Amino acid sequence: MKELDRKHTATLLRNASHVLILGHANPDGDCIGSMVALLLALKTMGIQATAWAVAPIPLKYRFMDSLFQKPDPASTNSWDLTVCLDTPCRSRLEVDPALIPSDVPMLCIDHHRISKDEFDYVYEDTSQSAVGCMLYELFCDLAVPLSREMAEALYAAVITDTGCFTNRNTDIRAFEISVELIKAGADPGTLAEYIYLSASVDQLRVLGEVLESLELLSDGRGALMYLSDATRRACMAESADTENFVNYARSIFGVQVAAMLIEAEDANHVRVSLRSKERSVNVSDFARQLGGGGHPCAAGVTAHAPLAEYLPEFRRELTAFIDSLPV
Amino acid sequence: MKELDRKHTATLLRNASHVLILGHANPDGDCIGSMVALLLALKTMGIQATAWAVAPIPLKYRFMDSLFQKPDPASTNSWDLTVCLDTPCRSRLEVDPALIPSDVPMLCIDHHRISKDEFDYVYEDTSQSAVGCMLYELFCDLAVPLSREMAEALYAAVITDTGCFTNRNTDIRAFEISVELIKAGADPGTLAEYIYLSASVDQLRVLGEVLESLELLSDGRGALMYLSDATRRACMAESADTENFVNYARSIFGVQVAAMLIEAEDANHVRVSLRSKERSVNVSDFARQLGGGGHPCAAGVTAHAPLAEYLPEFRRELTAFIDSLPV
Repeated sequence: MKELDRKHTATLLRNASHVLILGHANPDGDCIGSMVALLLALKTMGIQATAWAVAPIPLKYRFMDSLFQKPDPASTNSWDLTVCLDTPCRSRLEVDPALIPSDVPMLCIDHHRISKDEFDYVYEDTSQSAVGCMLYELFCDLAVPLSREMAEALYAAVITDTGCFTNRNTDIRAFEISVELIKAGADPGTLAEYIYLSASVDQLRVLGEVLESLELLSDGRGALMYLSDATRRACMAESADTENFVNYARSIFGVQVAAMLIEAEDANHVRVSLRSKERSVNVSDFARQLGGGGHPCAAGVTAHAPLAEYLPEFRRELTAFIDSLPV
Repeated sequence: MKELDRKHTATLLRNASHVLILGHANPDGDCIGSMVALLLALKTMGIQATAWAVAPIPLKYRFMDSLFQKPDPASTNSWDLTVCLDTPCRSRLEVDPALIPSDVPMLCIDHHRISKDEFDYVYEDTSQSAVGCMLYELFCDLAVPLSREMAEALYAAVITDTGCFTNRNTDIRAFEISVELIKAGADPGTLAEYIYLSASVDQLRVLGEVLESLELLSDGRGALMYLSDATRRACMAESADTENFVNYARSIFGVQVAAMLIEAEDANHVRVSLRSKERSVNVSDFARQLGGGGHPCAAGVTAHAPLAEYLPEFRRELTAFIDSLPV
């Protein structure tokens, strides 16, 4: 593994001739926007590039989906670099890494802490609020002119990962970069409409059900919500529809720790999302305790049990964690 | 009435000795933030100033409320300028204008179209996304240094009126100004937490109930939600908790007209909120048809009937309106 700075990452990209671009499973706006922006930048530089996504792109990011393609099997021999974006470990890649010829070096670019041993090259910057911000600066180094399409993709990346400039990770660079993206043609109102005004009825119905499950713990310092596989099916909602629901619990005044439990489609395991409002309430400590991990303010766990079985145990553990926090 | 540009507005303020600052009823973040920022700017300039708000400041803006005060009756004689912010006509002022001595000249600063005959001086700029942006530029002209408190108040103004940079009115200036406000000490994550992370459990429970009422009309071109007084009471929610719920219906992909019906506390009338996504779908036309009014994209009606009685009639009318729109 070789750890690169931005300058050397730029050199590595500049010397490639055919780049395969990959992202994580259930890709979000930072992942999709970054993939699209890098694809377009490389093409502008005269470098062949393929952005590969297996599942359909979610409706709200559909304005970018025409650029994704399933690779032509004949072309895989020409790949000389794979770039994994917003995906800090190989197991989170959406495309099975076994499908990539093992002699193609793999570069990971991420603002998450990267499992460095799993990649040949690593460009990590955990100070950045989005991979889109890292790419913007990389494109400046590469002197790639920003097209409107690139600016829109990067803007989608920035607003997704900063929660439209509301998350704790939102820094001045996110705004400074947005100014440049707007100059290059990104329109905040239009892109917000694509990304935020694209709910489905099923999604709002399942949100209604989830909100009915809301309960407070430890004198209102904790909030817990959950969704069974049966309820989700009854609402005809997809798992992706429930992304970010945990933020409703987090939004409650006085709540320090928010948790959302979603039973998986096989009803045999539960995905737990944990959120706090400030780094001093470190939910990744709690997640690790339960076998998961993440960041101080956003962490997760996968529990191998049906929801009904796991819920009482989790409620006890969460209450104990909150009660252990300084008041 | 005298219409002023920014330079002459700056001169008018610079020459004042005691300024009374007023805002509109049910003040939002642009109103409150602008009032606070102007108050602090004038004090920095050595000018006496009083920001007067009658009702308690809403919880989410409470970080700014210590600066408001009921004027000392003895001081009213010293007022030599009243500044009305974000309030384009006197009837919308929160403080009864009859309480202001009539010989004190009144300046209105607004990004809405101002009823100009009602004020002595008018500084209007409808191209700006927030009054906060107008004040930022005015403070630059006045060479008032931005304190952290002023920057926070102006940032609250900007994010409120741009819908955190998602509304159609969000322009590059809103971002450029935010960069300067952050440099002066405004922290986006902290301020978003104050303003957006202040939901109550009751509010989320009643949102859950409202979402369960969601229905689509006219092949998904319309979305309708409603809340009875009984359901609201059962959730222990206040009417103010349901503000903006109509935006959930508006957020649905393909929906052109969204409507939310809320039965009033006496269960004898219904407040209807109407929203569209673009000016070409003019919901104020429809509102006027039912005896209400508003803007092309946001309008309202009050119907004098219980919800159960009014709902079927309204559903028919709304369906007919949507079916009359060009596809």
